[in-house]
Amino acid sequence: MSIDKNYLNKVKEIQKDIDNILTTYPFPDSPKYLYDPIKYVFNGKGKRLRPILLMLTGNALEVDKNELQNAAIAVEFFHNFTLVHDDIMDNDNMRHGQPTVQQKWDTATSILAGDAIFVESQRLIGKINTNSKIIFNRFNDVAIDVCIGQAYDKEYEKDDKITLDEYLYMIEKKTGALLSLCVEIPALLSNQENMISENLRDYGYNIGKAFQIQDDILEIYSNVKSMGKSLGSDILSKKQTALTIIARKLYPDEWFELNQNLESFSVEQMIIMIRSFFDKNNIINETKLLSEKYFQNALDNLLVIPESKRSDLISFTNFIKNREY
Amino acid sequence: MSIDKNYLNKVKEIQKDIDNILTTYPFPDSPKYLYDPIKYVFNGKGKRLRPILLMLTGNALEVDKNELQNAAIAVEFFHNFTLVHDDIMDNDNMRHGQPTVQQKWDTATSILAGDAIFVESQRLIGKINTNSKIIFNRFNDVAIDVCIGQAYDKEYEKDDKITLDEYLYMIEKKTGALLSLCVEIPALLSNQENMISENLRDYGYNIGKAFQIQDDILEIYSNVKSMGKSLGSDILSKKQTALTIIARKLYPDEWFELNQNLESFSVEQMIIMIRSFFDKNNIINETKLLSEKYFQNALDNLLVIPESKRSDLISFTNFIKNREY
Repeated sequence: MSIDKNYLNKVKEIQKDIDNILTTYPFPDSPKYLYDPIKYVFNGKGKRLRPILLMLTGNALEVDKNELQNAAIAVEFFHNFTLVHDDIMDNDNMRHGQPTVQQKWDTATSILAGDAIFVESQRLIGKINTNSKIIFNRFNDVAIDVCIGQAYDKEYEKDDKITLDEYLYMIEKKTGALLSLCVEIPALLSNQENMISENLRDYGYNIGKAFQIQDDILEIYSNVKSMGKSLGSDILSKKQTALTIIARKLYPDEWFELNQNLESFSVEQMIIMIRSFFDKNNIINETKLLSEKYFQNALDNLLVIPESKRSDLISFTNFIKNREY
Repeated sequence: MSIDKNYLNKVKEIQKDIDNILTTYPFPDSPKYLYDPIKYVFNGKGKRLRPILLMLTGNALEVDKNELQNAAIAVEFFHNFTLVHDDIMDNDNMRHGQPTVQQKWDTATSILAGDAIFVESQRLIGKINTNSKIIFNRFNDVAIDVCIGQAYDKEYEKDDKITLDEYLYMIEKKTGALLSLCVEIPALLSNQENMISENLRDYGYNIGKAFQIQDDILEIYSNVKSMGKSLGSDILSKKQTALTIIARKLYPDEWFELNQNLESFSVEQMIIMIRSFFDKNNIINETKLLSEKYFQNALDNLLVIPESKRSDLISFTNFIKNREY
């Protein structure tokens, strides 16, 4: 499916605005211990998916621009807070095309930078005037969901007994919750009826699951450069992904045997062997179908929005669906 | 000065209530990765100074009990979030009479536990109905101040050029800001006029400074058991304290020489030598005077409260002033 050129221009414009706000945000100069790493984080090359989704939804629902912008930066701040802390927890060295904060500085610095970015997201939410208490409370309900999702992710890391349902629940919390907020906040800012808010919330959960399953696929099938982090790192650390859970479920013995055999090979050879196992046994297709199912559910959720205002969100969904990195 | 028995009973009652709420707080059972360490944190033997101060102020100002309790637990949650993260940053092994979270579990677990405790504090603030937006915004202004204070603390750790003023500013942010909030929230909950709110805010800053300077003294002059953390650890790591800054300012050469000589001695001998230097050169008295000045300022701030309602806060101030651990 080809993406509307008009849509792409709109998104480019929003992304430019968001990047501009982030890179010129009036953080103080001192203490440098705190603000140097924070400024550094927002000079990274993030995709800004969440504020883009929020702005597109807000524009469709004709939300006040100023309220929308505070919310957009708040969700991007929140997202980056989780990335800074996750990078410590997962010992990741690269993020958004540059060394992570704990790689460039240290653990203590990145803990505090993450904390302060989180506080700044709350302070932006505190600037919202419409339905402010409801939005503030939703924001923090989502924040606890994200913590819960991250906790399950850590619990499941090397647990080769978790089911696909448990995995999907974890993703819903870890990735879906914040995406839900990106479409729900504009609904709350424009006082939509409950049915619309709820469908938009579900849109977020669905696209979150679709996105994360896709991520699991790209992690093992894309190339290093476009993915921006080391290819196959989840596989090597035996992290559970949609692909590995489906492989284990459909072919428990063969999957176990493959993993036994892998250890004597190089990283590149491992990846080739795993890809070939997924291809041969149709696991890649099963997993793609699962991702596509959630993309379709997400598109269905959008039907509550009047047809004339729906097109950018459909394009956003298809754009994510067709991404190759 | 002797402390009113009636006051002590009141405080014991509040402390019991707070401990009861904290230890039976309806945290979910799973994910265990998240909630086991959180429950563990609140089973530690905290002094609960902040919620006690908040409840005493709220009772004096006749604030609604339910609103007050949400705020009291919120500030204690917030305080414990900072402790969990500070303990990672400072590599501390013991807290509130038990191993720290990162000591009992690991860094990743304690980062996430701290994050979630912070979110829970925000969710409690979100339950407040009176002046909710103002209180929410003050809460997060204080949260950023605490981050700023912690950042300066890290910056200053081994910086033997910082002045007493810089040190006091750091303390005001790191310790004073949250104590200010404990007296300011009840003022906001009972719609006090600005002059009263502002004086109460200053009370918090003053008692924060007094408290922290006192902490620096106790760190080197009390015994291990009552302090609950290893005696003299700040001195050994060459951390700047009110005592060391005053020593360096008054006797730069002698202080430098002492520090040169220390290195060949045992910890116990070091502490004896440092104490004797502080005693002989009147540094201990200078530092005590400074702490007492801020306690007096704090007592002066309380004059805005009608005399008939002031007594518990005066007792609280004197109780802190007379503490020996």
